[in-house]
Amino acid sequence: MHRYAFRVRYGDTDQMGWAYYGNYLRWFEVGRAEMMRAQGRSYRQVEEEDGLLLPVLEAHCRYFKGARYDEQVTIETGVMDLGRAHVQFGYRLLGEDGVTVLAVGWTRHCFLDRDGRPRRASGPVAEHLAIAPPADDDLRARLADR
Amino acid sequence: MHRYAFRVRYGDTDQMGWAYYGNYLRWFEVGRAEMMRAQGRSYRQVEEEDGLLLPVLEAHCRYFKGARYDEQVTIETGVMDLGRAHVQFGYRLLGEDGVTVLAVGWTRHCFLDRDGRPRRASGPVAEHLAIAPPADDDLRARLADR
Amino acid sequence: MHRYAFRVRYGDTDQMGWAYYGNYLRWFEVGRAEMMRAQGRSYRQVEEEDGLLLPVLEAHCRYFKGARYDEQVTIETGVMDLGRAHVQFGYRLLGEDGVTVLAVGWTRHCFLDRDGRPRRASGPVAEHLAIAPPADDDLRARLADR
Amino acid sequence: MHRYAFRVRYGDTDQMGWAYYGNYLRWFEVGRAEMMRAQGRSYRQVEEEDGLLLPVLEAHCRYFKGARYDEQVTIETGVMDLGRAHVQFGYRLLGEDGVTVLAVGWTRHCFLDRDGRPRRASGPVAEHLAIAPPADDDLRARLADR
Repeated sequence: MHRYAFRVRYGDTDQMGWAYYGNYLRWFEVGRAEMMRAQGRSYRQVEEEDGLLLPVLEAHCRYFKGARYDEQVTIETGVMDLGRAHVQFGYRLLGEDGVTVLAVGWTRHCFLDRDGRPRRASGPVAEHLAIAPPADDDLRARLADR
Repeated sequence: MHRYAFRVRYGDTDQMGWAYYGNYLRWFEVGRAEMMRAQGRSYRQVEEEDGLLLPVLEAHCRYFKGARYDEQVTIETGVMDLGRAHVQFGYRLLGEDGVTVLAVGWTRHCFLDRDGRPRRASGPVAEHLAIAPPADDDLRARLADR
Repeated sequence: MHRYAFRVRYGDTDQMGWAYYGNYLRWFEVGRAEMMRAQGRSYRQVEEEDGLLLPVLEAHCRYFKGARYDEQVTIETGVMDLGRAHVQFGYRLLGEDGVTVLAVGWTRHCFLDRDGRPRRASGPVAEHLAIAPPADDDLRARLADR
Repeated sequence: MHRYAFRVRYGDTDQMGWAYYGNYLRWFEVGRAEMMRAQGRSYRQVEEEDGLLLPVLEAHCRYFKGARYDEQVTIETGVMDLGRAHVQFGYRLLGEDGVTVLAVGWTRHCFLDRDGRPRRASGPVAEHLAIAPPADDDLRARLADR
């Protein structure tokens, strides 16, 4: 899976002393954006050059351990599922020790053109997603476990 | 289910022209806070007077239709599941027409004391949650549908 | 000045236990949006019907006392200065007692058309801003005091 | 001045297609946190080890040019003023070309102990701030210009 490190900022925390739970979806956005960039085609290019939008249809997050202020967190991102009309990304957040799993989650997206009509993935973005790193078994197991 | 109306602010939107997907978890927070207040015991009281925290263990959101800038959105909140050690809230977001379902979701919480130790729900918060409005069948059906 | 009440949400706080300082600019947005709506022309109408944008050129905030989680805050908004090419709004935030001044600030805006070209204020928005409530002397004094 | 680069995220933008104006205060926080870390004492250490908080008393921002989605922005941070009871940081945001000034601003802070009482800067944080890079003349001129 693709890895990207960032820091928890003061504005991310809440009065419980940990990062606010809504910020994790923003971090998922960072994860998939950086994975796509690393694959050779940024999401900005997908919007501007391919004319495709990938709005989120569904999002999920499991929180295991809070992220602390100033902690350096690593987000690991991989493709969980890729269809003709949608893509699902999976995420794992690791704490500063690089081992502790803070959270896992996934987002499911469709493809729209600039006029908001559903489209099949095609062209560069489809090619890049097809060879993107897949979500690993550990992540799938953590997400399936209830 | 408990109902509470609010407006989508400019800072909530993103360049796609709709509210950013991460903000919905914040709106879920507004929904459960206002439901608890309407039940007679605010979450602030639960933290300050009962000494209990309700951190989020898991969160889920399905997005059906984007929320527009300045749209008056109604969030409906109900209890989906209440156990001795956890509570699950369900949410439905309605657009300005009061009919269109913009999104549905849920959050699952545990109870911690001020030292971060797991606790059973007891006292006022347990009594209030026990008589809180339940999630209705429409919401449960939309959340179960895959 | 126009008055509008809202609550500080959990996601607004940071680990210091007060609302994060960056959120005040968002509250200023809420203040001017609700003042314009009360004047009879919402900012959404200004964008959609008048084809004008009011981007922020400059923003300022003085913080006197932190806003607490769940506190009901009132934002008072008035026009500090209105020129042909710009408008300046002033803001005063009051705590739950309706007396304690939590913060004061202002934002200065220009007028742009949809293509990003500077425009003079004209039509409905100019007429509405001309009769909007002005910033009062107390606010001006607090902002001038250094 | 200290330099730190970051990217504008989708969640930072609003429907005008640029970063929302309130996010700049968050970026200022990133700037001063990274400057302090580079000086050898992170703000986390100041809070945890020195027992000092640096709440914001006043904040100011001038916006020259919007920051675009996915743009790599550099924030330059320096000390504008250091007194016994307060410190003022100055900021300059540069666009992806490293030349275009997107915005400038400053924040003024006091020192509080953990009980919320005003304190003089002393110990490690005072020593580190005393040798931190100062705000340069270009920044001061841009901030003074009205």
